[in-house]
Amino acid sequence: MFLADVIGTVVSPIQTPILEGKTLLLLRPLTPSGAPSGLTRIGIDHTGAGVGDRVLVVDEGNAGRQLLAAPNGPVKTIVLGIVDFVELEGEHVYEEQHRESVARLTP
Amino acid sequence: MFLADVIGTVVSPIQTPILEGKTLLLLRPLTPSGAPSGLTRIGIDHTGAGVGDRVLVVDEGNAGRQLLAAPNGPVKTIVLGIVDFVELEGEHVYEEQHRESVARLTP
Amino acid sequence: MFLADVIGTVVSPIQTPILEGKTLLLLRPLTPSGAPSGLTRIGIDHTGAGVGDRVLVVDEGNAGRQLLAAPNGPVKTIVLGIVDFVELEGEHVYEEQHRESVARLTP
Amino acid sequence: MFLADVIGTVVSPIQTPILEGKTLLLLRPLTPSGAPSGLTRIGIDHTGAGVGDRVLVVDEGNAGRQLLAAPNGPVKTIVLGIVDFVELEGEHVYEEQHRESVARLTP
Amino acid sequence: MFLADVIGTVVSPIQTPILEGKTLLLLRPLTPSGAPSGLTRIGIDHTGAGVGDRVLVVDEGNAGRQLLAAPNGPVKTIVLGIVDFVELEGEHVYEEQHRESVARLTP
Repeated sequence: MFLADVIGTVVSPIQTPILEGKTLLLLRPLTPSGAPSGLTRIGIDHTGAGVGDRVLVVDEGNAGRQLLAAPNGPVKTIVLGIVDFVELEGEHVYEEQHRESVARLTP
Repeated sequence: MFLADVIGTVVSPIQTPILEGKTLLLLRPLTPSGAPSGLTRIGIDHTGAGVGDRVLVVDEGNAGRQLLAAPNGPVKTIVLGIVDFVELEGEHVYEEQHRESVARLTP
Repeated sequence: MFLADVIGTVVSPIQTPILEGKTLLLLRPLTPSGAPSGLTRIGIDHTGAGVGDRVLVVDEGNAGRQLLAAPNGPVKTIVLGIVDFVELEGEHVYEEQHRESVARLTP
Repeated sequence: MFLADVIGTVVSPIQTPILEGKTLLLLRPLTPSGAPSGLTRIGIDHTGAGVGDRVLVVDEGNAGRQLLAAPNGPVKTIVLGIVDFVELEGEHVYEEQHRESVARLTP
Repeated sequence: MFLADVIGTVVSPIQTPILEGKTLLLLRPLTPSGAPSGLTRIGIDHTGAGVGDRVLVVDEGNAGRQLLAAPNGPVKTIVLGIVDFVELEGEHVYEEQHRESVARLTP
């Protein structure tokens, strides 16, 4: 799993019913302190995340299929949760402040 | 999943019935804004994509086998969709303009 | 599998019962002699590890699901054990000294 | 999947019946135009490839086990096909010329 | 699969019966000619390898579980065989000379 910032979205007509209505998020992997790290990926949203959110991402096919209850879905990268805060060596290096996170988490 | 440009094709006699007639596409992974990023890969086309298309790629064996309805196929990298547009921090950084995409999506 | 130092924690409301109460650890991969190496990842604790511990990490979905007895859990990276010592070309390059490790290992 | 040149062989007594008699090939991953790219890997031959061939490689356990009809085999990287030609942005950048490829493909 | 040198061992109390008594080896991935390449990993020994051996490593969960006959084991990286020799473009670039390899291969 890794930390990422949601930096955009991708629109592509994928012909797989399970993905209909799902949002494809552009994800920039981050170091704990928030610096970009590694290649950008595209993930399927599972938590109502949007541009500007810091998120927790899992990048494994079976994990994604199980989360989406899609045993046959062509999924790999899933946004698993919106990060509330990150503590690095005893210091808060990130704290979510921008949106009402509880409301968003009800899918 | 990742964004890529289709930059070519590979022809190789693979002795696996499920792959007969499939096109092997050369894929150049991209950053959201379209710069090359990461190593070139070869994917199996699932959407009618061709050279010049920007595509969405999934790189996981089970996802590929399910998409191709090939439970025993030796597949990993699949071109899942042709990208219509990419929005990065509120700006359209890519918009598909070259071909009639709906027509192509009917396999 | 790889060696890592636990350098922090991440708090994120993940809506998956199996992960309730689990700690998400920030992991800095290391060379055998303890230098940082590779991108930071986030793992699920399985051993009572905390900030400052050197740990053994497995990064594969099925391994993680089996360890957590979570056949449907969206897991990938798991902290498998706290390292007692590392021997590199005949020399001890790391020895755990900070905490009472046996006590912690009883979940 | 990726393109590679076969650059050598490895001999190692692996105690797994399914791999008996199989050749372990040293594979150098390539860019489409044939420059080295990424770390060398070792693959199991499935097509009669040898040193000097340009090949198509799949690097995923289930794909490999299915190709070798080895549901329990410890396999991951498989040489899937010998490349006939590579077309990059409309130009042939590689064409197989050295051996009688059809003959070799009969296992 | 990849080539590696065994450069050390890791001792960590992992609470998984299947791994009891197994040796955790520090593995330095190598180019065919023996130069270090890529990040160090930790693998479970399956062949009696020790520090100084050049080995063949598979890095995939199902392959590892099958080799260890551990359908539920949290394994990923396995030392599959001790390398006898490596031939690169027609030349022997490595030849095992140090130990009586046949004796070791009887687990």
